[in-house]
Amino acid sequence: MDIDLPIGLVRDGPPLPVQIADAVRDLIARGVLQPGERLPGSRPLADRLGVSRGTVVAGWDQLIAEGYLTTAHGSGTVVNPDLAGVHPGSGSAPASSAGGAVRRPTTGPPELRDVVDLRPGRPDVAAVADSTWRHAWRVAAADPGSGAADPAGLPALRSELAAHLRQMRGLLVSPDELLVTNGARDGLATVLQVLAARRGRLIVAVENPGYPSLRQVPRRLGATVIEVDVDDEGLVVPQLDAVGGRVPDLVMVTPSHQYPMGASMTVTRRLELLDWARRHHAVVVEDDYDSELRYVGAPLPALAALDRRQEPDGERVVTLGSFSKTVTPALGAGFLLLPAGLRAQALALRSDVGPTLSSVVQRALAEYLANGGLRRHTQRMRRAYRRRRNIVTDGLDGIAGVTVRGMDGGLHAVVEWPADTADRHREQLMQQHLSRAGIEVGALSDYWSHSTEGTERQIVRYGLVIGYTAIEEARLVAAVTTIRNQLARHRRG
Amino acid sequence: MDIDLPIGLVRDGPPLPVQIADAVRDLIARGVLQPGERLPGSRPLADRLGVSRGTVVAGWDQLIAEGYLTTAHGSGTVVNPDLAGVHPGSGSAPASSAGGAVRRPTTGPPELRDVVDLRPGRPDVAAVADSTWRHAWRVAAADPGSGAADPAGLPALRSELAAHLRQMRGLLVSPDELLVTNGARDGLATVLQVLAARRGRLIVAVENPGYPSLRQVPRRLGATVIEVDVDDEGLVVPQLDAVGGRVPDLVMVTPSHQYPMGASMTVTRRLELLDWARRHHAVVVEDDYDSELRYVGAPLPALAALDRRQEPDGERVVTLGSFSKTVTPALGAGFLLLPAGLRAQALALRSDVGPTLSSVVQRALAEYLANGGLRRHTQRMRRAYRRRRNIVTDGLDGIAGVTVRGMDGGLHAVVEWPADTADRHREQLMQQHLSRAGIEVGALSDYWSHSTEGTERQIVRYGLVIGYTAIEEARLVAAVTTIRNQLARHRRG
Repeated sequence: MDIDLPIGLVRDGPPLPVQIADAVRDLIARGVLQPGERLPGSRPLADRLGVSRGTVVAGWDQLIAEGYLTTAHGSGTVVNPDLAGVHPGSGSAPASSAGGAVRRPTTGPPELRDVVDLRPGRPDVAAVADSTWRHAWRVAAADPGSGAADPAGLPALRSELAAHLRQMRGLLVSPDELLVTNGARDGLATVLQVLAARRGRLIVAVENPGYPSLRQVPRRLGATVIEVDVDDEGLVVPQLDAVGGRVPDLVMVTPSHQYPMGASMTVTRRLELLDWARRHHAVVVEDDYDSELRYVGAPLPALAALDRRQEPDGERVVTLGSFSKTVTPALGAGFLLLPAGLRAQALALRSDVGPTLSSVVQRALAEYLANGGLRRHTQRMRRAYRRRRNIVTDGLDGIAGVTVRGMDGGLHAVVEWPADTADRHREQLMQQHLSRAGIEVGALSDYWSHSTEGTERQIVRYGLVIGYTAIEEARLVAAVTTIRNQLARHRRG
Repeated sequence: MDIDLPIGLVRDGPPLPVQIADAVRDLIARGVLQPGERLPGSRPLADRLGVSRGTVVAGWDQLIAEGYLTTAHGSGTVVNPDLAGVHPGSGSAPASSAGGAVRRPTTGPPELRDVVDLRPGRPDVAAVADSTWRHAWRVAAADPGSGAADPAGLPALRSELAAHLRQMRGLLVSPDELLVTNGARDGLATVLQVLAARRGRLIVAVENPGYPSLRQVPRRLGATVIEVDVDDEGLVVPQLDAVGGRVPDLVMVTPSHQYPMGASMTVTRRLELLDWARRHHAVVVEDDYDSELRYVGAPLPALAALDRRQEPDGERVVTLGSFSKTVTPALGAGFLLLPAGLRAQALALRSDVGPTLSSVVQRALAEYLANGGLRRHTQRMRRAYRRRRNIVTDGLDGIAGVTVRGMDGGLHAVVEWPADTADRHREQLMQQHLSRAGIEVGALSDYWSHSTEGTERQIVRYGLVIGYTAIEEARLVAAVTTIRNQLARHRRG
């Protein structure tokens, strides 16, 4: 539908083409006509204004010469899209670049053109859009069916997810035990809401240190969040009884790759946690966010697998699945593996409230899983990430006074100072030195809850968290050299 | 041997191609032309009718677009063999149809092979996947960026949504006032959570009758839901003071097209509602689910536009946007237009908890809006739906004892019995008669809350709700004939 331009012409005014040009210029200046917007055809407009078509064309030629309008093959005359930048608030900002790893520096030395963003947690999205991926979306877009039919998620997708869990995690589950979600946070919110409907205000235990993103969800949904220490074997289970006075209803853990230090929870610890949960009727939420990205050895079985050894249908463990780290957060897709006791209520809640994951996304993901795209991409990324991890560990090897941990998997490495030589101040200084050199990294102590800093219970650790996955190797090599130099130069905090 | 089609043309009637299309459509509906049957060549028919060949071809192109005819290599133009299912007794086997309107019957007479699903609320999804749509997804899939950068939604998408609101709804809003959601229910859930965080347990007023889907959300999120009557002008505002004892915190309305009777809320009533909301510090949630699908006259301005006349930044009104009815529920996408006082908290909530709409979907939608796909699709559907609406109203016109309401817009028509001749039993009986004839329709009384049935306050109305949008015209013609016959046969309840 063409815009109906509010142009009024007067008889005794300037020449008609000038009046038309003035009116359109004014509409653009006021934002009624937006950059990129198509103008009506010259003939219908001429008819409406009661002038000849040549008069309209003459007015537009003037505006084209002035740069207000442009013509595009096949799409007629449009408001110059380049005007967007000069009109504050006029929107239609162009989408940013691919990969996301490069941002313009807000401050910094002029010789550095780009900031190297090594903050952790972001996968390499540049490698995702291969032919398999594009094919999956083509198939999905061709069938924009009415969708929303099954609140648990498309049966075809749940079948593929069950196959995926069997192949990648050794988990034998039925598609009926799975619920498709809009990602890990959405799945967690569903579990919290179902549990809160039964028990009222919840107590939720989280790991300390831990990944900040997911723990915001219980707080926002009204739960009391308590932090539990993590040692080399994983969450310290006896603390679940000691904290707060009330027993947690739900415990959130990252057993395959504890964030940020990278340890796997030992089998002994896993069994201890499950036993505790059983005795206290608590739910264990296992955030299985990157278990497939493992570079050394084989992953330990999921907590859900241990749970199902005792109860075939699952009893205590909810597994949060996500493709944010293994593929891209742009997918906005995840799933829940639920024990029998939570399934019906979770499904009822999602039937009423949703949100349902776009069934175009569901179809594309099902196709991507079915045609082996995810498996191939994961293998490719595992090789690429291992190489990048080695660039970091080799490049920072042997610097006096620091320990470099490459981890067995995941998306980052940690450079740690000995506890007696470091504090928050030293960490921030090093971040500033690197930032001035154009490199952004994470701070290790950020993953400890601030409430425990300085207390006797838990010793906060200090260092740098270096995400190495969202950057090309050549840039990573250069950045690591800079980090090495800065660490060597500022050996004393 | 070609069929000698009994087509007569008149000089002063509609354009000749339209007359030809009408005649052939009628022959198909009457069974004179059978599914799979070959039509005469365009040249001999043109010669016989005394018109140009182009005129005949234009008439047939129309019927091909509508699904009555198809062309097959080597066999010329034939009556669509898929029409077989709606013509009892016609021999040839139907292929499966587009649009999801056809399901296999679970029970029913053996001569009817397919169920015609005329339950309301589903758009025609078969027409969505045009080249613009597929292009939008191709562009989006090619750039699986890390996404999730802006919890309000991609700036490019919000700019397009602001332009869309300006062009289609006359609403001048900034992209910063918009929040991208996973659909209307998700947006409503965000508003309810923000408000509940301030006020505790909420009282939410909903329209009675009304659409059942959205009102489940406040109930599930712990609010008390009260039902308020609707008359010909819209929600009866004084009842907001009278019900329950506590004043509602939030009022949900469908002002552009009240469900299911189709009335628009008058401007007087809109102002009355806004005034009430201002005095009681209540939030009005405007569910703007299908205002673009209007077939008669121009839509009234959005409630948000009235609100913004008093406060430039909006004060009382939240607008829920969705593409479920105008495009397809498969998109799973929507948006919120928020008044100033709710924006920061809604954004903070979504930053922490999400769920973020897949940024692939966001990019595809932005592209689809930018390249005019939505506008063209809406225009196309408006034309197609208007034709289908007329098939229903014309086809059911003049039956004694019922009133047919075609509505000014939307996705369904209503056939109503006078209050004194009808009850729930009559409604159910008619649904059963139609179901046995292979046709599923909605029941009008279903949209009244059951708690008010039989009370003095509100007179529940009885009849059929006929969704006409998710079905091809030829099948609709046949189904309407059956409905007409059943209504005439069972004139007494």
